[in-house]
Amino acid sequence: MSDESMFDTVCLIGIGLIGSSLARVMRRDHLARHIIACARTDATLAKVSELGLADETSKDLGKAVENADLVVISTPIGTNGAIAETISAHLKQGAIVTDVGSVKQAVMAAITPHIPEGVHFVPGHPLAGTENSGPEAGFAELFEGRWCVLTPDEKTDPDAIDQVAALWHRAGSKVDMMDAEHHDSVLALTSHLPTLIAFNIVGTVADLEDSTKQEVVKYSATGFRDFTRIAAQDPVMWRDVYLNNREAVLEMLQRFSEDLSRLQRAIRWGEADMLEDLFRRSRDVRRNIIDAGQA
Amino acid sequence: MSDESMFDTVCLIGIGLIGSSLARVMRRDHLARHIIACARTDATLAKVSELGLADETSKDLGKAVENADLVVISTPIGTNGAIAETISAHLKQGAIVTDVGSVKQAVMAAITPHIPEGVHFVPGHPLAGTENSGPEAGFAELFEGRWCVLTPDEKTDPDAIDQVAALWHRAGSKVDMMDAEHHDSVLALTSHLPTLIAFNIVGTVADLEDSTKQEVVKYSATGFRDFTRIAAQDPVMWRDVYLNNREAVLEMLQRFSEDLSRLQRAIRWGEADMLEDLFRRSRDVRRNIIDAGQA
Repeated sequence: MSDESMFDTVCLIGIGLIGSSLARVMRRDHLARHIIACARTDATLAKVSELGLADETSKDLGKAVENADLVVISTPIGTNGAIAETISAHLKQGAIVTDVGSVKQAVMAAITPHIPEGVHFVPGHPLAGTENSGPEAGFAELFEGRWCVLTPDEKTDPDAIDQVAALWHRAGSKVDMMDAEHHDSVLALTSHLPTLIAFNIVGTVADLEDSTKQEVVKYSATGFRDFTRIAAQDPVMWRDVYLNNREAVLEMLQRFSEDLSRLQRAIRWGEADMLEDLFRRSRDVRRNIIDAGQA
Repeated sequence: MSDESMFDTVCLIGIGLIGSSLARVMRRDHLARHIIACARTDATLAKVSELGLADETSKDLGKAVENADLVVISTPIGTNGAIAETISAHLKQGAIVTDVGSVKQAVMAAITPHIPEGVHFVPGHPLAGTENSGPEAGFAELFEGRWCVLTPDEKTDPDAIDQVAALWHRAGSKVDMMDAEHHDSVLALTSHLPTLIAFNIVGTVADLEDSTKQEVVKYSATGFRDFTRIAAQDPVMWRDVYLNNREAVLEMLQRFSEDLSRLQRAIRWGEADMLEDLFRRSRDVRRNIIDAGQA
């Protein structure tokens, strides 16, 4: 890419873990001549300036997007519709809008109606994250070696798709194209359900009487601790994921609960072979993941 | 401890991840003058010899324990009763028998009746492990900084307790005393339930059609992967845990399922505040763990 920037002006709406990591990638590789960061609070914007993540900060979404060639929405997905509506009349002809939401059908339904003729919306989802949130939690290497899934439809401009894909490649990601419905169903199982289960088991512990809770914390290094790390992620972001991928999550949860009932019954009735067989098959899935280089 | 060994002869019955790690600690710190390792198969014993983990290997449990001052049983807990019965008549007066099982009431009920007068049984449980198993998976640092819980009863010889505690201290562990019933209940929640949940969700995926399963593996880095690591642990060991801590696990599973039903209902009916509140409380538990130095 040498000295030439990929984009002239980029507007980052939302500058938490994902948005600020992307800002760091753009800074590191000089991918944008001018970066404008938008957030709801002065405190966040002050932090952004202090960290040098943007050339300009703003709480006025309309003004912020006016000159942007690329607008990246990285806020909890429940806010996306209102944001798209607010920026709609201010978007420049030829601009590209993209997002990073963990659910794609609901986000596309919320954003697409507000995208004017001549502006291109490329829905995206980088499969990356940590249990930390906020602009100070980001880092440029967050996306390296991870997948970024784009879910354009048949009407999406191919050049816009290419530019968004190129940005994620520069961030070190592998880029995949997928149908939005299929994305939501696969992610319900690989991400939304495991996280829900982690929230649930940690919640079960949170409800214990204090003395027992202290002991659970003390002896947490035996499996429980891994769940608390998953369950430490941003509450608002995850609330919105479940509210916006309801059908797929409920379907996977139903399967999970049926399987758990079977397992509960096997324990109650001492069905040793059934337990051992299931545990062996679980280990095989782990081996597939190791073979696929995802461990 | 200088040059003097803690024990003259130690017999390790079972030399998988835990047994072989303990052997490595004893080798490193010269805690035993003579180590005898017992396993069921020639292949395992050949591996033990190749790794230099013992001075002597044997498949004859009776002979192996004859001169032992300390006998450590580190086999799946379903085998403990039969092992105790087999070695009973061969144990030397004054010998100490200990174990490393993840369940304490059932193990004590299985072993105690076979402990002769003048031999001391000190039930123990090092809270340490990895997803790997077998003698080659062990390492001397496995127990460092981890808890080891001993669950002697009021009749257990105090000197024997001290010697077993001293061994675990040398392995780098912090040692705690606990009532066996309480241990089983706390561990059901911190260890047995999370592992069961992990086995279950990985099992749900194992039942998917092949094409979807391949995609779940491909995108596993989004939460699911952490579960597969937990669910890759030894199937026989865990089968025996659930069969032998049935009541406590079923009780915790019941609580978990009730909480999950509530969560499922909140997703179905779009109860945003309830979801966000639960997720915030989960994050607080994580902070407690970080504050307790267990993260």
